[in-house]
Amino acid sequence: MKNLLKKISICFIFFLSFTEIASAEALSAEGQYIFNSLAFYIGGVLVAFMAAGFCMLESGLVTTKSVSTIGAKNIGKFAICSIIFFFFGYNLAYGIPEGGYIGSFTLWSDGSAIDTGYSDSSDFFFQVMFVCATVSIVSGAVAERIKIWPFFIFAVLMSGFIYPVSMGWQWGGGWLASSGFSDFAGSTLVHACGGAAALAGVIVLGAREGRFGSKGEKKSLVPFAASSIPLVTLGTFLLWFGWFGFNGFSQLAMGTFDDVNAISKIAVNTHLAGAAGTVTAAVITRLLGGKTDIIMMLNGALAGLVAITAEPLMPSPILAILIGSIGSIIMYFGTKFLEMQRLDDVVGAIPVHMFAGIFGTLAVPMSNPDTNFGTQFLGTLSVCVFSFILSYLVFKVLKQTIGLRISKEAEKLGTDKAEVGVVAYSIRD
Amino acid sequence: MKNLLKKISICFIFFLSFTEIASAEALSAEGQYIFNSLAFYIGGVLVAFMAAGFCMLESGLVTTKSVSTIGAKNIGKFAICSIIFFFFGYNLAYGIPEGGYIGSFTLWSDGSAIDTGYSDSSDFFFQVMFVCATVSIVSGAVAERIKIWPFFIFAVLMSGFIYPVSMGWQWGGGWLASSGFSDFAGSTLVHACGGAAALAGVIVLGAREGRFGSKGEKKSLVPFAASSIPLVTLGTFLLWFGWFGFNGFSQLAMGTFDDVNAISKIAVNTHLAGAAGTVTAAVITRLLGGKTDIIMMLNGALAGLVAITAEPLMPSPILAILIGSIGSIIMYFGTKFLEMQRLDDVVGAIPVHMFAGIFGTLAVPMSNPDTNFGTQFLGTLSVCVFSFILSYLVFKVLKQTIGLRISKEAEKLGTDKAEVGVVAYSIRD
Amino acid sequence: MKNLLKKISICFIFFLSFTEIASAEALSAEGQYIFNSLAFYIGGVLVAFMAAGFCMLESGLVTTKSVSTIGAKNIGKFAICSIIFFFFGYNLAYGIPEGGYIGSFTLWSDGSAIDTGYSDSSDFFFQVMFVCATVSIVSGAVAERIKIWPFFIFAVLMSGFIYPVSMGWQWGGGWLASSGFSDFAGSTLVHACGGAAALAGVIVLGAREGRFGSKGEKKSLVPFAASSIPLVTLGTFLLWFGWFGFNGFSQLAMGTFDDVNAISKIAVNTHLAGAAGTVTAAVITRLLGGKTDIIMMLNGALAGLVAITAEPLMPSPILAILIGSIGSIIMYFGTKFLEMQRLDDVVGAIPVHMFAGIFGTLAVPMSNPDTNFGTQFLGTLSVCVFSFILSYLVFKVLKQTIGLRISKEAEKLGTDKAEVGVVAYSIRD
Repeated sequence: MKNLLKKISICFIFFLSFTEIASAEALSAEGQYIFNSLAFYIGGVLVAFMAAGFCMLESGLVTTKSVSTIGAKNIGKFAICSIIFFFFGYNLAYGIPEGGYIGSFTLWSDGSAIDTGYSDSSDFFFQVMFVCATVSIVSGAVAERIKIWPFFIFAVLMSGFIYPVSMGWQWGGGWLASSGFSDFAGSTLVHACGGAAALAGVIVLGAREGRFGSKGEKKSLVPFAASSIPLVTLGTFLLWFGWFGFNGFSQLAMGTFDDVNAISKIAVNTHLAGAAGTVTAAVITRLLGGKTDIIMMLNGALAGLVAITAEPLMPSPILAILIGSIGSIIMYFGTKFLEMQRLDDVVGAIPVHMFAGIFGTLAVPMSNPDTNFGTQFLGTLSVCVFSFILSYLVFKVLKQTIGLRISKEAEKLGTDKAEVGVVAYSIRD
Repeated sequence: MKNLLKKISICFIFFLSFTEIASAEALSAEGQYIFNSLAFYIGGVLVAFMAAGFCMLESGLVTTKSVSTIGAKNIGKFAICSIIFFFFGYNLAYGIPEGGYIGSFTLWSDGSAIDTGYSDSSDFFFQVMFVCATVSIVSGAVAERIKIWPFFIFAVLMSGFIYPVSMGWQWGGGWLASSGFSDFAGSTLVHACGGAAALAGVIVLGAREGRFGSKGEKKSLVPFAASSIPLVTLGTFLLWFGWFGFNGFSQLAMGTFDDVNAISKIAVNTHLAGAAGTVTAAVITRLLGGKTDIIMMLNGALAGLVAITAEPLMPSPILAILIGSIGSIIMYFGTKFLEMQRLDDVVGAIPVHMFAGIFGTLAVPMSNPDTNFGTQFLGTLSVCVFSFILSYLVFKVLKQTIGLRISKEAEKLGTDKAEVGVVAYSIRD
Repeated sequence: MKNLLKKISICFIFFLSFTEIASAEALSAEGQYIFNSLAFYIGGVLVAFMAAGFCMLESGLVTTKSVSTIGAKNIGKFAICSIIFFFFGYNLAYGIPEGGYIGSFTLWSDGSAIDTGYSDSSDFFFQVMFVCATVSIVSGAVAERIKIWPFFIFAVLMSGFIYPVSMGWQWGGGWLASSGFSDFAGSTLVHACGGAAALAGVIVLGAREGRFGSKGEKKSLVPFAASSIPLVTLGTFLLWFGWFGFNGFSQLAMGTFDDVNAISKIAVNTHLAGAAGTVTAAVITRLLGGKTDIIMMLNGALAGLVAITAEPLMPSPILAILIGSIGSIIMYFGTKFLEMQRLDDVVGAIPVHMFAGIFGTLAVPMSNPDTNFGTQFLGTLSVCVFSFILSYLVFKVLKQTIGLRISKEAEKLGTDKAEVGVVAYSIRD
């Protein structure tokens, strides 16, 4: 009898302690599933804001006669990339065999089950916003002289093939992932990839008429003055906030203690890196140029954010500040370098996204012991070369066939009048 | 003794298996409650962004001399509708007897209990943003010639009676809900309802001075050029993102596997429908007019979003793309039709919200087998007629009493100088 | 034997009922932890939007020749305050001994554990956005004549010392908290504190050249016309939405039935107070001035939101409406009062944030029985005096050393050309 009582007691104690542990430690599978899906949902909405951010940034930085075109290109690209990624891109990237090079041209469909840990659609929603961001990077660089529809065709190929394939090498579990490469939220897979495509576009298109004087002559930039600095500032803020989704929810889960801690640490590091990029650019421009250049500050913020994107979790906040700061310095001198090369990148997309993105990727081993410089170098080189060459080919073929650049008359008139038929501003006192 | 041991064992096993199932399958009531309330909270914030979206869209589309007025009307309407909906609208809509026609003029108060499944206040917060959206639709259509305060009085009646009553027929569990009508997030209850009221306003007010030439004569639209295309674009982006709250969280719950899956599917379908609307309008305007009309693209995005709103969950993504695309086509020809009728809808609110909204509602049976065309037709007809007639009466009475339209001198001067006393832009090089 | 069976049964029943309660009532510690951290995350993102809101509001309200400077100041301040708060501010505020006056100059680091109830980093992320909001308040008031870098130095001292110290008196558990003072989300700790610093800045700097005529003479304000009303409106909307994070998630927890109910009630009260402030300002300006002043409506919205911030949870919605309305009235007459005193507060920051903030704090005892007027008065007085005196000293020292105000020539030229080197708008038809 006593024995029985003892057994039961032990049973009870075991049971109580078991439930206590359960209650203290693990959320139910359904609870985790909801949190993970919600993470993708919130993340998707925040990254969507980046589409508006890119649009405002570009609208403000181009001259007044190309602003409506920027609107058309950005809303159009947002739409086209989403549809194409649904039809082609998603399964090219995520349907890849382990260690492989490319997925399949099949249609994505929602196959959610509690075991997968999150709603398939929520994941698609999050990922589709990334492809829109990638193509946005190109849009600004080639502004004011590219024709709208050839740009849309490029957007189709970028969102349907170039981006998903090279992204799948890593995030789809392809050969780069197998090699040990690490790119948490896409310094290389999104930003350097988009920047390399932008570089190809800028080279194939050539500079805007009158942007650079004859060799050696210093050209006044006044005719290319930014149409609206407040919109550039707004766009940068929106991009910055979007980054909280871009980096934070690239943790891809929120249903555990560890995951939500990671998301929160990422938010802090991301924010501080952007802050450091901003301050650094303010200091540089004030010291070197005498004035505190607002455009450089804004691009400095973005460069800092791009640089931290490859590894926003492992660095200490102080290291995040350092990474953001260096990203900004690289952007500054990269901008000057491109100007010297007479490459006309209207919004500074190449130094911000490609140069700072490459740096961020190479800096991962500073805080992540599972990576090494060689593999990081290989990864970013592969993606940049792949993106550059394919984009270059696409732009070249477009140029030779349907034409890529608007006519000289149209450029004098401005793309708004020539292509969109709607003047951007009709402001009369 | 053995028997007892057995009984206890069975008890234990039953109990263990019970808790195991519980842990794997169902979140606690409190967990669900928090998720559901959070869904309303996030949804409310996202739909609130639509208020800013409408305001930017309208600010950009009106001429430069009516922009401050748009700001005053939009922030004023946002405020007035919220207060009036609190005092009257909410209980008119949700205090309705089953199958009934109207609720009671009583004050809403928070009666949250864990059994209701979500915080009452979170639900109110979500719903109050819907009424603001509905009245926003009217604001743009009647811009540039309506007096501010009569518009505010209309906003009181729309948010305090017209919208809540017809909305309650369905979402409050009234006669339309009993009839089998289905309108998931409000293609009819919000968008067509607002669009019908806008139509009434446009008819009663008449066109802006000089908007249409004498019959048969084609009038240049230059004096009515949009003041700022980037703001229109920004507004459309904000509306688009707001729709992720508008449609997604109209699931009204997030605390289960099924609910979060539904929310995620809705987000994908909503996004693709908006994308399809955008692309469709770009193609149409390029093919028919030669230029890629940015304003039509933006309204095409909105029309696609409106069209999918009646049933964003059941369609496959491909069907969602189709629905968005047709919504955009309807918007395009609807806009031309209104112009032919010499109806001056400044922002295109009627074709976007009413025409595409009616289409979306009628298209529900394509994917939802529990609905039929007849009931869908009855529902959208009832709401549109109700909204149109009551709005018409309100506008007529206002016209006959305190006056609805600004004077000809004021119109020449612009509503900003005449009514608001603040010029919208003071931009000097 | 029977006895044993009875004991076991009782044990079981107790145990079952215990688990039943547990399942119905309490989420696991991890579940709560995730919800709480997520609350900080969402809250942080929403309050971040206020940084963009302040920037747009100020960009729109200044004259066209100071708009780029506003951008530089706002993105710069957002960055600087974040870094300084990380290095100094956070532990000055939260490392304070109970009932004490000041924390320690130590570095914050993430020490998350499941027992603390939320991720440390998520809390930091939320709090860092508050300091950015506080310093933003100053930025607008001193616009158009302050030098950029002295302003940045002030931002360092405000975010690194003035705000964290006085905030820590209450939220860090210092002497004000011990005294029974109550300020839920910061009518005093954020808004009046920022407003008092703004007042100090305005006094030390003096008015813009030509802003006021010689004594007694009424000066036309036309040369100081707002550059863009739509941006002011957008900024106000963004601030309003940000307030849903600012007030709602100052509940600091979301993992229980009670917490999520509180968050939801706060959202409704906050929204209605903002609405009431808007409507009140519309009515006042229409009745007193003849026109419906959009700028006053927008500042009325903000004043209503500021006023409810000290106690957004306890009031009934009707009381919230009343508090918002009175806040707006105080803002209106406060603005006139400052003008009479020839104090040049460019955006109305002092009446909106300081005057309405003090009122809101003093109004707490109307709904919160645990507070009294005397303690509320003491608290707001202490914070305002502390902030004013220290800010005054900082501005004075800056003025005497490196200089605070731009030269007369620079002011005639505008800060954009003089300091930033980038013209805000280049809009040509």
